[in-house]
Amino acid sequence: MTDQWLTSLITETPQDGFALAVTLSRRGVKTTQPDVDVLKKLRPVYAEDADSLTAASQVIAINFQTVAAANNYWR
Amino acid sequence: MTDQWLTSLITETPQDGFALAVTLSRRGVKTTQPDVDVLKKLRPVYAEDADSLTAASQVIAINFQTVAAANNYWR
Amino acid sequence: MTDQWLTSLITETPQDGFALAVTLSRRGVKTTQPDVDVLKKLRPVYAEDADSLTAASQVIAINFQTVAAANNYWR
Amino acid sequence: MTDQWLTSLITETPQDGFALAVTLSRRGVKTTQPDVDVLKKLRPVYAEDADSLTAASQVIAINFQTVAAANNYWR
Amino acid sequence: MTDQWLTSLITETPQDGFALAVTLSRRGVKTTQPDVDVLKKLRPVYAEDADSLTAASQVIAINFQTVAAANNYWR
Amino acid sequence: MTDQWLTSLITETPQDGFALAVTLSRRGVKTTQPDVDVLKKLRPVYAEDADSLTAASQVIAINFQTVAAANNYWR
Repeated sequence: MTDQWLTSLITETPQDGFALAVTLSRRGVKTTQPDVDVLKKLRPVYAEDADSLTAASQVIAINFQTVAAANNYWR
Repeated sequence: MTDQWLTSLITETPQDGFALAVTLSRRGVKTTQPDVDVLKKLRPVYAEDADSLTAASQVIAINFQTVAAANNYWR
Repeated sequence: MTDQWLTSLITETPQDGFALAVTLSRRGVKTTQPDVDVLKKLRPVYAEDADSLTAASQVIAINFQTVAAANNYWR
Repeated sequence: MTDQWLTSLITETPQDGFALAVTLSRRGVKTTQPDVDVLKKLRPVYAEDADSLTAASQVIAINFQTVAAANNYWR
Repeated sequence: MTDQWLTSLITETPQDGFALAVTLSRRGVKTTQPDVDVLKKLRPVYAEDADSLTAASQVIAINFQTVAAANNYWR
Repeated sequence: MTDQWLTSLITETPQDGFALAVTLSRRGVKTTQPDVDVLKKLRPVYAEDADSLTAASQVIAINFQTVAAANNYWR
């Protein structure tokens, strides 16, 4: 993991901040399972299970709390 | 996802803030499963399972924390 | 959802704040499943499952964090 | 629920604050299932399941965050 | 539970704070199931289940948030 | 556990902070199951289950909140 993917939590808009929260959530998954082929195999099952989707949304919500606070809520 | 759907976390009332929290929660789902037909198919199962509903309420609660803080709790 | 149900997060006492947290948690459920008959049907199963009850308590706890912060912890 | 059970979040010591967090967690359960007999029936099953115990500990942890913040962390 | 086990959230180092977070998490379990023999019986099953371990780590993470804030993040 | 593994929550960049959040999450697991052989045995099952991966990402997100706050969000 020598690539730079996270240089700042500051984003221009709340929507960009939400996108960053999605990125952080996916990174959390990729850190545990770095094999992209496995991740691709899991996606179809996962993305058609309502509870899995809610769980994914929850991780995004938690990361969005962090990003929003970092940006002083874009006030 | 080029449409603008989140330009501000500021809302006029707490109730509007709660509605925004619901929007954020649904976006988190839609980001992972963008196919609206799949989402429609999942809804009936999902919406009649008590634990799924509690889980959905939890994501809304987490997003509401963010929106409420952004609005300085509408004090 | 045109009725006004949330005009303020400020409550007189911590106990009123806890009651508001319960209201917020239930609203999160009702937003996802607005059919009251379905909700009534789910309740008996749900309310006799320990893990469901813990999950419900968790959502209340998250919403209580928000309400307590809004009220500056009734200090 | 006309009895007064929560008049303040302020406690003398962190340990008292932890006890209050436990009380809040149990109240969250009791609010959803007020029938004490049902709760008693659930306890033996519940208290011998490791995942249920972890979930209970998590709700306490969330409520302890609130109580600790209210007390300015007893600093 | 008359023994004193939590007199302060302040620790000398972040690592001590993490250890305190572990203590708080275990206390949350012990409060719900005080019988040490039952807890001992549950451990082997629990500690070899990946999802149970993640759940335990999550409770520690939540408690660590509290302890870290109490210590002003040892800045 | 006499080794020093956590001397500071301060990191130079957000990406280093995310890596620290991963470390904290793994420590939470290792604290509950210190036997590295068991952990190794669990990994293959765990890392191919979408819900387990989401749960792992969630713990990282919670720890990242702590690390980000400690670093004043690298603003």
